[in-house]
Amino acid sequence: MRVGLDVGGTKTDAVAVDAAGDVVARVRLATGYGPDEVVRTVAAAVDELCASGSIPRSAIRSVGIGIPGQVEPGSGLVAHAVNLGVDRLDLRAAAGDRLGVPIGVENDVKAAALGAYTLHGADGAMAYLNVGTGVAAGIVTDGLLLRGARGTAGEVGHISVDPHGPVCRCGQRGCIEAFAGGGAVTERWARPGALPVRDVFDAADAGDPQALRLRAGIALGIASAVRVLVLTADVDAVVLGGGLTALGDRLIDGVRAELATSAEASPFLRSLRLGERVQLLPSGSPAAALGAALIGAAAETEEALTHG
Amino acid sequence: MRVGLDVGGTKTDAVAVDAAGDVVARVRLATGYGPDEVVRTVAAAVDELCASGSIPRSAIRSVGIGIPGQVEPGSGLVAHAVNLGVDRLDLRAAAGDRLGVPIGVENDVKAAALGAYTLHGADGAMAYLNVGTGVAAGIVTDGLLLRGARGTAGEVGHISVDPHGPVCRCGQRGCIEAFAGGGAVTERWARPGALPVRDVFDAADAGDPQALRLRAGIALGIASAVRVLVLTADVDAVVLGGGLTALGDRLIDGVRAELATSAEASPFLRSLRLGERVQLLPSGSPAAALGAALIGAAAETEEALTHG
Repeated sequence: MRVGLDVGGTKTDAVAVDAAGDVVARVRLATGYGPDEVVRTVAAAVDELCASGSIPRSAIRSVGIGIPGQVEPGSGLVAHAVNLGVDRLDLRAAAGDRLGVPIGVENDVKAAALGAYTLHGADGAMAYLNVGTGVAAGIVTDGLLLRGARGTAGEVGHISVDPHGPVCRCGQRGCIEAFAGGGAVTERWARPGALPVRDVFDAADAGDPQALRLRAGIALGIASAVRVLVLTADVDAVVLGGGLTALGDRLIDGVRAELATSAEASPFLRSLRLGERVQLLPSGSPAAALGAALIGAAAETEEALTHG
Repeated sequence: MRVGLDVGGTKTDAVAVDAAGDVVARVRLATGYGPDEVVRTVAAAVDELCASGSIPRSAIRSVGIGIPGQVEPGSGLVAHAVNLGVDRLDLRAAAGDRLGVPIGVENDVKAAALGAYTLHGADGAMAYLNVGTGVAAGIVTDGLLLRGARGTAGEVGHISVDPHGPVCRCGQRGCIEAFAGGGAVTERWARPGALPVRDVFDAADAGDPQALRLRAGIALGIASAVRVLVLTADVDAVVLGGGLTALGDRLIDGVRAELATSAEASPFLRSLRLGERVQLLPSGSPAAALGAALIGAAAETEEALTHG
């Protein structure tokens, strides 16, 4: 049995995956804040999974963890997991001490990319584009995550697509994330409300000019990311996930309309049929936790190869 | 002995590479126009190489060909090689009939990427960015060309980085190629001269306002491509080649200045040290022909695996 955890800023999603690759148990629990609490959450998630699925601890061969921060390639070192209150943590070592099984750790978007690739039944190349507070992608080719040289693979959120666009929290102007990131949109909307991006869409439907501009910017940002991913990595499909995708068709219809506009202007873009290649991850999909389980399984194989 | 040919719009560069990977002979000849003449050029290049290097024909195990057109992945089918007057040609079959050895065919930019990777002594991930009439890149990871799903990997030239930028021949506005492609710059400069892009740089040095704008656009376009390649595929280095790189430091200094400006605004970009990661392919480098030789060698291995 493989366990996969998606440790999010507020909730942790945990799955147990059997040898056939099927999810046989799933639990969600609140994520603690700070390094110690994150490690405690990981251990608690495994306990709850075992209890809920009647899984003996001895059946767990590996645990994989997806986490919203930088993960040093080939290590379990997490850095700058700001939303979790973690500046630096050797999560592989800390979780391994608690759980006594091989641990794999990966950035949550990259883990979700691997899970989405598997759920999608994809072959060839696919990108998972996470549109949440920030915007980032994971690219999977022939079942392998593109990790790149220095950990910036898939950081399309900080590509500028308009030198006169809004200032991004990274300092540049017109970044994809400055247009489409939930954090940036919320900041520019600057009105109270529990679901500010949904409020923007509602206000745009009612004709509010600022909301119309922001909504158009979200579509432009996501469509730009789709174009970048296809024209650089030549992925077959771009699967959208993350908080903003709770808007469902209201989100993707706008993205497709923006892709259609650029295709109208350009026979070359038209030939790429981008509108057909972008899709939504189904709501409630366990992609990120499933991907983490795959990362954990790979970590076990690696450990076996290294230590015999 | 492996032969590699870079079939360009006006000239063909041919190299013979020994088992150690060293270039032992090199010739250049004029490229013929149209399918029959292209095939004849290929055969003539092999003849001239053999004569110039005293290489017996029987020593040639494979011939690889880089060509400025679309090459259907895994085949030798060339399409839309506009500058060669070739609309559609099974170059693998036609050249194989003439030469009687396994033939590999690849898009010239992708072949050059593979050659640059080898010459560069790179490991990890590298991009080769060709800045000639058009702008396109080849991405090599761990020695393997990123081919993608539908042949658009590395087509960064048609990513728009300014919705109000110049109209591109592809129909979009503000494409990287519309800013930095030699064809687009020549068209907008619209003054007579044998080396229009050099004229633009000279006129910019003399303070001509249109030339200053065009020169800044070239730097912006190339710097944008570097940012896209690093932030999507996370390549360690971006090596520039193609016609415009004959401008040497005059070109790359402008690119580095543009990268420095964006790094000043953004700590995140600053941390990527992009200015240090962009470099020029040395003038006269046989990268494209060498890469073609590697493509040919791979084709021989493939044929052996398929046919025993």
